[in-house]
This record gives sequence, C-alpha cells and structure tokens, in this order.
Amino acid sequence: MNFIKRFRVEPGASVDLEKIDPGFHGDFANDVEAKDELQRNLARITELQRTFYADRRHSLLIVLQGIDGAGKDGTCWHVISAMDPQGVQVTGFKQPTPEEQEHDFLWRVHPHAPQRGFISIFNRSHYEDVLVVRVHKLAPKDVWKARYDFINEWERLLAVENNTTIIKFFLYISKEEQLQRFKERLDDPAHQWKISASDYTERDKWDDYIKAFEAALSRCSTEYAPWYILPSNHKWFRNLAASTIIADTLEGLKLETPKPTVDIEEIRKLYHQAKEAGEKAR
Amino acid sequence: MNFIKRFRVEPGASVDLEKIDPGFHGDFANDVEAKDELQRNLARITELQRTFYADRRHSLLIVLQGIDGAGKDGTCWHVISAMDPQGVQVTGFKQPTPEEQEHDFLWRVHPHAPQRGFISIFNRSHYEDVLVVRVHKLAPKDVWKARYDFINEWERLLAVENNTTIIKFFLYISKEEQLQRFKERLDDPAHQWKISASDYTERDKWDDYIKAFEAALSRCSTEYAPWYILPSNHKWFRNLAASTIIADTLEGLKLETPKPTVDIEEIRKLYHQAKEAGEKAR
Repeated sequence: MNFIKRFRVEPGASVDLEKIDPGFHGDFANDVEAKDELQRNLARITELQRTFYADRRHSLLIVLQGIDGAGKDGTCWHVISAMDPQGVQVTGFKQPTPEEQEHDFLWRVHPHAPQRGFISIFNRSHYEDVLVVRVHKLAPKDVWKARYDFINEWERLLAVENNTTIIKFFLYISKEEQLQRFKERLDDPAHQWKISASDYTERDKWDDYIKAFEAALSRCSTEYAPWYILPSNHKWFRNLAASTIIADTLEGLKLETPKPTVDIEEIRKLYHQAKEAGEKAR
Repeated sequence: MNFIKRFRVEPGASVDLEKIDPGFHGDFANDVEAKDELQRNLARITELQRTFYADRRHSLLIVLQGIDGAGKDGTCWHVISAMDPQGVQVTGFKQPTPEEQEHDFLWRVHPHAPQRGFISIFNRSHYEDVLVVRVHKLAPKDVWKARYDFINEWERLLAVENNTTIIKFFLYISKEEQLQRFKERLDDPAHQWKISASDYTERDKWDDYIKAFEAALSRCSTEYAPWYILPSNHKWFRNLAASTIIADTLEGLKLETPKPTVDIEEIRKLYHQAKEAGEKAR
C-alpha cells in the first residue's frame, strides 16, 4: 500500500469524515504482524535524518492534530524515538497566554518554524485557531473564516522561502474509541490527575469539532503542505502510517551528504602525525 | 557501586584529571554485561519523568561538556530516548552569534533554563565561556576569571527560585581515545563532511583544555549544582553512569503524582452516561 497516496487529502478535495474508517488497519492483522515493518521505518528515519541534517538544504515541519485522546503525544514520542534529538524540536501549543492573545494568531507559532537541517514537530498548532476557536466561538466568524487563507499563505512562505517540507497529520479516532481511552485514564492512578470534567463537555461538542476539522482539512490541504488523515483507533497502525509517510517523504527529497570541505588525504596525514607523536610520548 | 558518590566532584575539592582513569568501567567487563542494568535505568527514567512532569514542583537541568569527540551527542540521544519528548528540551550552544556576543555570557543561556515539570539538556553550555574562551584568549583573563562566580550564582538562582536540580556531566576521554574517534570519522564517508583541520589544531591545545576543565570542575561544583566526571572511553559505561545518576537523582526528589483535582467518582458517572448515550445512538 502506498500510504502517502492512500491517506493524503488531495488539494481541493472536500473531506467527509463519515466516509473514513478510523478503525482501518490495512493488510496487517495486528501490531505483532506490523512490528518488523515499523522497525524498518524507524531505522529508515534514523538514517535519513542523519543525511537531512548534514544536507542542510531542507527543513521539515510535522503538525499533529486530533481530538482529545487521539494520540498526539504517543505519535510524537514514537516517531521522535528514531531521531537524533540534536536535530528535532517539539513544541506543544496550549491555550494562548495573555501576551500571545494580543498578537495575530501566527505570532506565537512562527518562531518555532524549523531552520534548515532541522525538524520541528508541532503538538497542536496554529490550526487550533480554526478548531477550538471556531467550536467555542472564541472569535467572530469573519475572523476565523479569514484564517484558512492566512494559514495557507504562511505555510507557503515556509515552503518557498526556507525549503520547508510540511506534513500534517490528523489523527482520526471514533467517538467510541475516545470513550474507551477516557476509561483507561480513569482506571490508571498515574493518569487520574490529568482528568477533568471538561473532557466530557468537550465530547458533547464532538459533531462541531468534526465539522471544524473537515473544514480545515478541506481548505488547507495543499501541494506544499498536505494533510494526511490517519486512521488512529489502532495505535500501532497510526504509528505505522505516520512513520511510513515521514520516511517516504524524506526519501523523496533526494538528500545528499555534502562533500567534505577539506582534503581528506591531507587530514589523514594530520591523523598519522598525531598518532606518531602520541606513540613517541609514551 | 554508588555512582553519585563515586563520580561527583565534592564541593571545594581540587580536581586533578591525571588521577582519574577515563577507561574505568567498574564491575562490568563489557557492554553485553551492562545491558540489563542500562535497560533498567532507562525504564526507571521513563517512569520517574512521567511523575516529574505530573508533579510540577521541580525542574531539571542536565549540562553536557567534554572535549571534541567525548560523546556529548551520543549521551544526549541515549538518555533522552527514555524521556517523553513533550517534557524535554535539548539546546546546543554553538559559537555565539554577533548579537549574543554583544550581551553578557549568560544572556543566551537563561531563556533555556527549564520550567517546572520540564527537563532541559544543554549540549555545551555557559561553561564554554570559561573553556574555549580561556584557552583561545577570546576574553581578557580578568573577564573569564570573574565568570566562575557568576556561574555559581546563576545556577544557585535556578536552584533556589525555580527548584531546579542541576546535574553537570564532564565526559572524560583520553587523548588516545580522541584520536581513535577521529580515525573512525575519517573512515566513515557519512561523517567526513564534519571533519575539519581545526580538530587537530584544537588537539594541540589538549593540555590547556584539561587545565581549563580542571578549573571549572573545581570552582563550580556545588551542593546545588555538582559536577560529575564520567569516565567515557567506553561509550557503554558512560551511558550506564549517566543514566544511573539521572535516575538516582530523580528518585531522590521524592516525586509525587498530584491528586486528581476532580472527584473521580463523579467523572466515572459522566463516563457511564456517555457510554449509555453511545449505546442508545447505535
């Protein structure tokens, strides 16, 4: 299966999430069957990131969005485990601070755009400003409506100006799966401190969130910054899909390790001199 | 072996690196023997960090220093692999930018101090300003000499004001081991782009660097921000020592998962209501 083709939202397409099965898991029956493939992907990412970092011509932005419980944290940890931490930065976007609220919605996001050679991961992102803001009417309709274009233009800026490849994952789980995950939190004492009643009041707005996601997915999937809808009821399949798409995307960049800037044979001479000097000193 | 006691520079002690064996590897003969212990440490770190993040009363700063080739990147990757990336930030400090140079030497470092609940890892740090700066005479002697006190006071600020636990690792390798690692870079085409002739000219200043490290280790190991000298000729032993010290230090904090802020039984009712509503809808 070509994961990129299968899960990419075609630019201009109108997304209807009803037609997508969040429980989909492809040809693999379970996590045990998928394990080798997953390990291969992580090894590919490790190797590719090493070259990506050396190459220094590209940057990569990975955006993670999904309803509460969809697995943004888990996905983040999973894909990042394959990456040299020197070259990656994760930014979580929470409720804006008072200072952030006194700026345009892209102001707090822009400083975290990746520099060349680096990978940025956004756990939540500027899309919150057309999701929670829309659902909770935190801004007038004409304000959030104007934001889709601003987002597209800003993402294009990164792509054009800084050679940024952008991968946006919408982690799609069913309403039943979300409840199941809430149950697991309830039963795990180490997780109970995180629970709030708003988990359930937010859940009452499920349909509004789905509508807001559909709009964002439809209006902001572009050639230079496509959305991918990952069926995420099965965590292992979500990880498999995310890691495949990242590895395939990096592969598509035709990365190259730069040639040494020095004459390696000259350096080899320096090495031998140092070696001899060390032996004499002993 | 109590790693903390064994490798900690006692506050006020005068460090003589000649007396320390960078090839030391404790009771373990090799990496295979140490493997289980290492895995246990990583599992402990994962568990402890989870509580650390939830607890939100402490912050942790890990500083990595060492001569070129000592394994700062490798150590970083190794210990971080056990941590949820949400709660960790790695900052690499390279040569200061022109803007940074027009400020005091702590100006560029301070913004990266960890917030409560979080772990910051410094790959190189403010100590460069008493190391490379001293060796290369990039500042007059009275300027870098004054910095030891500034460093101690700044680290005390973090400890007192923000409950920051500070762990500083000096990764100690021998001059022969460094040369061996340079050789590996020479022989690995994927690494050749990183090589420069300055690796060898810096090596000529080995003794000056050792002296500068000894001064920093002697003058800046405090109760609230101790230095640890990790024998690092064996990468596996360095990883074992670093992970043990981090895990033991976190354990010493007596971390606690906060009590839920809500009545869990009330939330359980919400869960059952949602469950029933879901079943009716089907």
